[in-house]
Amino acid sequence: MKPISEEITLEGHIIDSWNLPRAWDRIMDSGGEFELIEIRVGKQKEETSFAHMKVFTDTVAAMALLLEALTELGAVVVSPDDVKTEAAPRDGALPDDFYSSTNMPTQVRLDGRWVQVANTEMDLAIVIDRAAGAAAMIPMTEVKQGAAVVVGHSGIRVQPLARSRDKEIFSFMNADVSSERPKRLAISQIAREMQETKARGGKILFVAGPAIVHSGAAPALAKLIRNGYVNVLFGGNAIAVHDCEAAIFGTSLGVALTTGQPVEGGHRHHMRAINRIRRAGSLREAVAQGILTSGIMYEAVRANIEMVLAGSVRDDGPLPDVVTDMMEVQKKMRAAVQGVELALMVSTMLHSIATGNMLPAWVKTVAVDINPAVVTKLADRGTFQAVGLVTDAELFLRELAEELEIKE
Amino acid sequence: MKPISEEITLEGHIIDSWNLPRAWDRIMDSGGEFELIEIRVGKQKEETSFAHMKVFTDTVAAMALLLEALTELGAVVVSPDDVKTEAAPRDGALPDDFYSSTNMPTQVRLDGRWVQVANTEMDLAIVIDRAAGAAAMIPMTEVKQGAAVVVGHSGIRVQPLARSRDKEIFSFMNADVSSERPKRLAISQIAREMQETKARGGKILFVAGPAIVHSGAAPALAKLIRNGYVNVLFGGNAIAVHDCEAAIFGTSLGVALTTGQPVEGGHRHHMRAINRIRRAGSLREAVAQGILTSGIMYEAVRANIEMVLAGSVRDDGPLPDVVTDMMEVQKKMRAAVQGVELALMVSTMLHSIATGNMLPAWVKTVAVDINPAVVTKLADRGTFQAVGLVTDAELFLRELAEELEIKE
Amino acid sequence: MKPISEEITLEGHIIDSWNLPRAWDRIMDSGGEFELIEIRVGKQKEETSFAHMKVFTDTVAAMALLLEALTELGAVVVSPDDVKTEAAPRDGALPDDFYSSTNMPTQVRLDGRWVQVANTEMDLAIVIDRAAGAAAMIPMTEVKQGAAVVVGHSGIRVQPLARSRDKEIFSFMNADVSSERPKRLAISQIAREMQETKARGGKILFVAGPAIVHSGAAPALAKLIRNGYVNVLFGGNAIAVHDCEAAIFGTSLGVALTTGQPVEGGHRHHMRAINRIRRAGSLREAVAQGILTSGIMYEAVRANIEMVLAGSVRDDGPLPDVVTDMMEVQKKMRAAVQGVELALMVSTMLHSIATGNMLPAWVKTVAVDINPAVVTKLADRGTFQAVGLVTDAELFLRELAEELEIKE
Amino acid sequence: MKPISEEITLEGHIIDSWNLPRAWDRIMDSGGEFELIEIRVGKQKEETSFAHMKVFTDTVAAMALLLEALTELGAVVVSPDDVKTEAAPRDGALPDDFYSSTNMPTQVRLDGRWVQVANTEMDLAIVIDRAAGAAAMIPMTEVKQGAAVVVGHSGIRVQPLARSRDKEIFSFMNADVSSERPKRLAISQIAREMQETKARGGKILFVAGPAIVHSGAAPALAKLIRNGYVNVLFGGNAIAVHDCEAAIFGTSLGVALTTGQPVEGGHRHHMRAINRIRRAGSLREAVAQGILTSGIMYEAVRANIEMVLAGSVRDDGPLPDVVTDMMEVQKKMRAAVQGVELALMVSTMLHSIATGNMLPAWVKTVAVDINPAVVTKLADRGTFQAVGLVTDAELFLRELAEELEIKE
Repeated sequence: MKPISEEITLEGHIIDSWNLPRAWDRIMDSGGEFELIEIRVGKQKEETSFAHMKVFTDTVAAMALLLEALTELGAVVVSPDDVKTEAAPRDGALPDDFYSSTNMPTQVRLDGRWVQVANTEMDLAIVIDRAAGAAAMIPMTEVKQGAAVVVGHSGIRVQPLARSRDKEIFSFMNADVSSERPKRLAISQIAREMQETKARGGKILFVAGPAIVHSGAAPALAKLIRNGYVNVLFGGNAIAVHDCEAAIFGTSLGVALTTGQPVEGGHRHHMRAINRIRRAGSLREAVAQGILTSGIMYEAVRANIEMVLAGSVRDDGPLPDVVTDMMEVQKKMRAAVQGVELALMVSTMLHSIATGNMLPAWVKTVAVDINPAVVTKLADRGTFQAVGLVTDAELFLRELAEELEIKE
Repeated sequence: MKPISEEITLEGHIIDSWNLPRAWDRIMDSGGEFELIEIRVGKQKEETSFAHMKVFTDTVAAMALLLEALTELGAVVVSPDDVKTEAAPRDGALPDDFYSSTNMPTQVRLDGRWVQVANTEMDLAIVIDRAAGAAAMIPMTEVKQGAAVVVGHSGIRVQPLARSRDKEIFSFMNADVSSERPKRLAISQIAREMQETKARGGKILFVAGPAIVHSGAAPALAKLIRNGYVNVLFGGNAIAVHDCEAAIFGTSLGVALTTGQPVEGGHRHHMRAINRIRRAGSLREAVAQGILTSGIMYEAVRANIEMVLAGSVRDDGPLPDVVTDMMEVQKKMRAAVQGVELALMVSTMLHSIATGNMLPAWVKTVAVDINPAVVTKLADRGTFQAVGLVTDAELFLRELAEELEIKE
Repeated sequence: MKPISEEITLEGHIIDSWNLPRAWDRIMDSGGEFELIEIRVGKQKEETSFAHMKVFTDTVAAMALLLEALTELGAVVVSPDDVKTEAAPRDGALPDDFYSSTNMPTQVRLDGRWVQVANTEMDLAIVIDRAAGAAAMIPMTEVKQGAAVVVGHSGIRVQPLARSRDKEIFSFMNADVSSERPKRLAISQIAREMQETKARGGKILFVAGPAIVHSGAAPALAKLIRNGYVNVLFGGNAIAVHDCEAAIFGTSLGVALTTGQPVEGGHRHHMRAINRIRRAGSLREAVAQGILTSGIMYEAVRANIEMVLAGSVRDDGPLPDVVTDMMEVQKKMRAAVQGVELALMVSTMLHSIATGNMLPAWVKTVAVDINPAVVTKLADRGTFQAVGLVTDAELFLRELAEELEIKE
Repeated sequence: MKPISEEITLEGHIIDSWNLPRAWDRIMDSGGEFELIEIRVGKQKEETSFAHMKVFTDTVAAMALLLEALTELGAVVVSPDDVKTEAAPRDGALPDDFYSSTNMPTQVRLDGRWVQVANTEMDLAIVIDRAAGAAAMIPMTEVKQGAAVVVGHSGIRVQPLARSRDKEIFSFMNADVSSERPKRLAISQIAREMQETKARGGKILFVAGPAIVHSGAAPALAKLIRNGYVNVLFGGNAIAVHDCEAAIFGTSLGVALTTGQPVEGGHRHHMRAINRIRRAGSLREAVAQGILTSGIMYEAVRANIEMVLAGSVRDDGPLPDVVTDMMEVQKKMRAAVQGVELALMVSTMLHSIATGNMLPAWVKTVAVDINPAVVTKLADRGTFQAVGLVTDAELFLRELAEELEIKE
């Protein structure tokens, strides 16, 4: 038997969530060994299971790495130490060995007590306030010099989510981005989820790409907003510009939305639309002045929902409402996703990945794109709640809007 | 000036169809030169134009190649020779210098008279029956030893199609396979085209891939057949198998079409479905025996439409109705496309390309696929009539079926 | 506890191969329950594990379906019955409840004895020769009326493959079709695998698509054949035609391979190349007559390797060597894959899937395509031995050929 | 004849560039008519052509739109007016009817004299300095209130580029993003172009995406920089982070670049790498402190080339060198592209489109990506100089580096 050993336990839906076999796998992949001290397997899907193991490695360093990995699978070291911290060496920088967070609920052990860590987002640092007995996840850039940053792996407990076995969309298309499944069912289930979320006062986030406007689906999204199905809207300059172009000129990239024909001089429309809103001063001003009288932006202003338009290096203009500093925009998005329970991401890889990175693992997430690569990337978030739908954004949105009306 | 010269004329919609500038381009690309003897440009879209040019090359061989290319653009050599022929050297083989046909209306000059060539299909040989003063396009494999096969380029006149400027789908999406155009308009225009074709007794061809069944769109296609919108149906073993699986077991590749959930043991269903039909003897027998009571195959049998199911190397089974010899299947498809005026190709690259190769350039063709590469390949047929739609087959077919019902 | 129960055991690399957790998952997904009677988990990767469970379901039918699924994961029913058979109802058709095979080693229980089933291929029937005490997998279409066909699930034992943990390509890219991994390493490991296979006299199969020729990689593949790295070659009409076009005219689809420029009249070359070979009578004749003096087909004829060219509905010509009947071609391919230990599939979805369906699970398979969708589909074969590489076929083949030369 | 008329001329390579037939097409598409007053067609590729036409429309508004479109094709109105201007209504906003620039050389008529417009970039405004008799293209956001902004279409002359007929990469792959062409030739021609550009002191711009690092191609790009083949480097946070991760930990996204195996704890490496650089203060500091001793960033710092790292909404960290404000980053990029003669864009849609929008039409541009959609989008820039290569970035870069070494 290898010389270094630790005892760990796993408890909960560890069969169902595949976390127990994953743990075994991880141990063997790392060249370690294990001894099964006790195993109790839940006989039905509601029952939880329990495993108690002794883990062996050749070196202390190997054990540290292995425990870090097992910790993410929910393993807890028997008789654990308290969490360890080091002081941040300067503003916006961390100790070398800092613990980088997952998007799952996390606890740290302070003075022998397990304390819930505030905020849940992947790839952040955990900062401890010992005086208050509190812990929080914080972006690297916002950590102040001297803050007590969690390092290493001890005294940390991650609670992996159980895999759902429900007969709903969020199990239905699990880890499956095929374009060959019946979408009608998926859309109907998404509609039901939206209604339930709205009914219980949960927030719905919509991340929207410009193809929604090009393809003529803006009225469907506008209707969702008008009917209260969107509480937070994320997008870039492009969707806002094309929506304004559609509202002002009836075209998108110069193509008339009513006939599908390019309009003479139409390729200039998007620059002219940007200019109109810049002259007005803001989208809200443009609505007030009667320049903007329909569309996604119009409804978003009227419904007064939270909206973050993120700039990018390729923007024309941009519109005055676009946040051009990326630190600023991330702050605004982080604030806006608080309380979101359902996220729909349609036809935008950049903003979807940005948003996905900020969401806790338990937020139900649907990614829709005609390009399977985008959907795969988004569904790769490592949670059981993200599902992908490879389909046409236009037909999807129109059918979703119809479905929501029928159900009402 | 280069030493070898020929005079050619181009007439018709040579501006509109870009054939005149294409001809100039071709001459310059080949290193040749030209002198414009006369040009009359139609001032409006209905008027035809005329150009008379002298073309120069360095060698006779270069002139031969250049005239061959110009001929395909509709150029006619002034005071042309008769068409030249050579005898086929053996059954199924041609003289080396044989003329390989285009998919455009073609004439050959026999005894000073322009004679229309029967059949129109690309990449065939033209065989002359001098006794009858007739000419026909024939597949290489069906040419008999000794047949008079057209060689070289003289005495051949191709009539390029004018580019349509109509405000319909077939101009609308011209050479444009973007997924970012409004599909609602396109679907509505396709529906209108189908109704007009049906009303005037034209044949509609549907080339169907298996994703139609997986995605739950089979009922929509079945409805199109039932309502008389499909006269000819092409597909492979897969769509027929999955349709039978759906009709018999309610699943497609083992996934229940009503819930989207995999069914226990369902991955065996497709083999069982094949076996059921094989036991019955044929699809028609399976309908007669009450084994098949719904679906695409059921409706196709009931409506008695022409159907060709082509085998492929990857087929399971196959179903007894599948034609497993490729020479045989091409013959059946060639016979079935006669009189087709509108072709819809949905979610099947292999059968769509096979069919596209057999269609004259004037057949209006719509290719629908979620993969832009497939649509590009199909739309690359070099005709103004082929349009591509990058969208979801399921949502497309359901919307098309609805659109046709509303219009009725 | 549910009323119907059976005892099963799983033995071998059931942790490593994830078959034990998969079995638990399957039981719970199906609504069943289980009781763990005994579990012994191998402490290191070389040790096997053992699990003994009692499984419960509500109905006998549910138990049958569940055992069928567990059987595929390697579960064996404790004190099993003999395998059951029924007579085939007619030539080419099976009893309704026939057992459809997997691509893993399989045994059936005859008179209390476990007998290895000859041939290994998915989706076939198992036919028993009771007199000889033998069993074999046979395609549905080749089963004769009255043959003893295995039905149900009892008396069948499938031996799942262990998942490799080796530091070689076949673990390296496991279930991973990313285009973002270093290909240089993968190519080097494939080269080593080829050399080892060749050294021990194993057969290497190459399934080749036409893009190999278009992209100028034919000389690399020709070199592999010349140097003895290809024992069996599968392809379609297209690759053979384009290879002949390249050998005769120096073009592929009319584009000169030395300059990348289209050649005047070159789009006719592929039809002319087909015609040349048809005049000669066969590829072998064309080599003998000096018509074909280089290229893939030339080397394949010279090296006298097994070659199957499968026809398809979209073929031009085809070449005289192409097998146009799909039943015939499947027979030839089945015969040729016997003894294959390594399969490389490059740039051809149709032939790759066809071939993949015929290979036992233990054949190491590498699928190379620039389109991730193709690679995903091919890697979806459910075995641990299939790996996918999303890359450029041309650069891949040239680098592979160089790598093999360096290693020699 | 329609009532409103204008006389226009086109001169130059108007056949070759297809601008004459495009002009005819545009007139007819818009419902207008034309009369050909004179046409002189250049007989060889070196000769220019000339056309003089009278154009007719129904309304003055239609004529204005039509002339705008014809202007972009190089048409000049006979006896033109001076350019018209209006005052910018506020900082960062333009008169409604502002002229939006193309990426082609442009002149405006001031007091009867044609004046060259400084800067060349699409979608900018043109601002006139009447006192100095000068004109310049300026981004909307930088226009000051009261500036004299060009409006309408009169007095503007655009000089379309001739289409090259050279036997080089930049004609070779024209408008062709096929993955089926021989890349070996293309790479060789790109290498020659790089050497010629370097030899004559022209600037070479490289726009680089993170897949370059994941795929193990960073050493190849580092070598290009070391050998002086990159003068300007654009990228995002991701490529810089992954390059630093590779340099510090030998991994990319936690996968070891030497073995292709995931490293225990490696998925934390990118956050740790960011933190190391943040602790150092900047990339330059990290090189100075010996933290960074190899890779793309190391070579770029050492060679002291111009580098712009643009932030995006999805960035982790970011690195201290990343410019997070998008207005700022566009300014820096605009400054850096001055004098660029050759642009290589590899595996990054966002930065490539951003850069493409800023480049004059005459900059030779090569876009390389494994995804055809990206290449199509980039090649859609409407210039004859942009070519696309659908291939593997890793194999492309390594072959390019080898090719450059051989040639030296």
